[in-house]
Amino acid sequence: MDNLTTQLLAGNRRALARLLSQIENQVETAAEALAQLHPHTGRAWIIGVTGAPGTGKSSLVNALAQGFRQRGQTVAILAVDPTSPFSGGAILGDRIRMRDLSGDSGVFIRSMATRGSLGGLARATRDCVRLMDAAGFDVILVETVGAGQSEIDIVRTAYTTIVVEAPGLGDDVQAIKAGILEIADVLVVNKADRPGAQQTVRALRAMLELGHPVARQVSHHGQLMTVGEAPVSSALQVEDWSPIVVETVATEKKGIDALLEAIDAHRAHLQGEAFVKRQRQNIEVELLDRLQTALLERLNRSLSSEALRDMIDQVRQRQLSPQAAVGMLLSRL
Amino acid sequence: MDNLTTQLLAGNRRALARLLSQIENQVETAAEALAQLHPHTGRAWIIGVTGAPGTGKSSLVNALAQGFRQRGQTVAILAVDPTSPFSGGAILGDRIRMRDLSGDSGVFIRSMATRGSLGGLARATRDCVRLMDAAGFDVILVETVGAGQSEIDIVRTAYTTIVVEAPGLGDDVQAIKAGILEIADVLVVNKADRPGAQQTVRALRAMLELGHPVARQVSHHGQLMTVGEAPVSSALQVEDWSPIVVETVATEKKGIDALLEAIDAHRAHLQGEAFVKRQRQNIEVELLDRLQTALLERLNRSLSSEALRDMIDQVRQRQLSPQAAVGMLLSRL
Repeated sequence: MDNLTTQLLAGNRRALARLLSQIENQVETAAEALAQLHPHTGRAWIIGVTGAPGTGKSSLVNALAQGFRQRGQTVAILAVDPTSPFSGGAILGDRIRMRDLSGDSGVFIRSMATRGSLGGLARATRDCVRLMDAAGFDVILVETVGAGQSEIDIVRTAYTTIVVEAPGLGDDVQAIKAGILEIADVLVVNKADRPGAQQTVRALRAMLELGHPVARQVSHHGQLMTVGEAPVSSALQVEDWSPIVVETVATEKKGIDALLEAIDAHRAHLQGEAFVKRQRQNIEVELLDRLQTALLERLNRSLSSEALRDMIDQVRQRQLSPQAAVGMLLSRL
Repeated sequence: MDNLTTQLLAGNRRALARLLSQIENQVETAAEALAQLHPHTGRAWIIGVTGAPGTGKSSLVNALAQGFRQRGQTVAILAVDPTSPFSGGAILGDRIRMRDLSGDSGVFIRSMATRGSLGGLARATRDCVRLMDAAGFDVILVETVGAGQSEIDIVRTAYTTIVVEAPGLGDDVQAIKAGILEIADVLVVNKADRPGAQQTVRALRAMLELGHPVARQVSHHGQLMTVGEAPVSSALQVEDWSPIVVETVATEKKGIDALLEAIDAHRAHLQGEAFVKRQRQNIEVELLDRLQTALLERLNRSLSSEALRDMIDQVRQRQLSPQAAVGMLLSRL
């Protein structure tokens, strides 16, 4: 085991930060470190926090981190920003946090943005969480803007998923977020002191009652599907858990205790067979995802870009069907 | 060539409808039909229309279809609804269209919803468009709700992509849609008679000026990335096109001529090398996507679900690292 991983296991923050950077920059050695650290993971409770812009997600993560600290637990925060270069959400959220959490050695904060691939970001999130886990943090909070499938993939790293809503964002936004709702273990209505909060709570409860069993099935189905539409095991099943709705005013630390209790309840629920099941799902997704990357790398090596370009042009000129082209590619591997 | 494909090539609508259903239901024979029809595709102009709920997307598609009809062109509409079972957008849109377009034999309308996989939906969209193309339609309009990566994948089938905005949807929604903006060839501000329309137009123009070159690069980068983070060719480059902003009031058919002209301009721009490039990109994405599916099917056959489960459990119990597990899976293929 090399120096950096040994230092990380001893809780060295600088070693953690350096390995996190290696993952972000896709340094080759990071994979080796991750393999070495794997036996030392599995202790942290991983919590995903997602929601649309404007729901006060960052403030909530901030308040949650303080709540865990008051219980004596150490907290690592990973803020993942999958949005385009146009928005700078992660940076703003960090600034708020710095003010409240700086100087506390029991908290580690890292943000990760992307200008490239969303699939790659989900993968990097998983690996970063694993490093934080090996570094000994009790709780890992993964925060991401909720805007679609990519966030679902990112949040999937978590054991407990919190979806943050806020009153008054309008029906249009609600419709967009329907897919996100389906992955919630805990639903937070933040800014609960604003007009319309009770209406939002009622709407969420109604949606949950209406759509819950089907929705979770779809969501879990979708999980495997994201890696290739060919379900390998039948491990994915509906979990017997009804999402808890919690009202908070994160900026005033209101409702945070109730939220912590909801997380506790979900964690207690997830012990035993249900937890094993969820871990199996996550690992299956991860293995298929890694396999896919490895296979494409292999294809990359076995086929020159000229050969691929020729094949693409034959398809383009209707001399070769895509089906036949894939048959040829398969025979190359 | 079997009966159904021959009938489809002769323009038989019932044959088209039956083959579309085969694709939706993932019937084995559909792949064979698609391979047979491949030489007969490539004639239709494919236009993607996407935007958040509430932008009046369906009315716009409706008005556009009528515009093309007035020019004497035949139109097929494929309305793809990737949202959860909670919303029923596609159905409503269809109802509006039925009223305006029914009885016109030059228009073919099909909607496709999903309760399963988003990746599968993008694939089905591509295959359905190909059938419509082989059936001889001049224009194919692919309509989808804009809410994230999944829609980007769906819209990618198109040669010209129209992103629909509307005034007054708020900043939060704008932030969500930033990723969608990056794929626009034509930007429509619909409901342009509403207050705030000029502000939306100005905001879009500002965003375009600010983010355009970088944004398109990111978007194209992301394209390859969605199939596995291993770029195979370097075909993806920034196209030299500045999106046109058009104002419409679709329900009153206002601005539709300007929109048709913008589409014409983009189509003219895309002739020659730029069009070849775009087609190559689309085919590359398709081939890698199909290859992935085929490889997972192969893995599925070569590995029992018990063997996979055992491996997953070894990773879960930290006896095996994910990296080592993938090495074992690779050796099986």
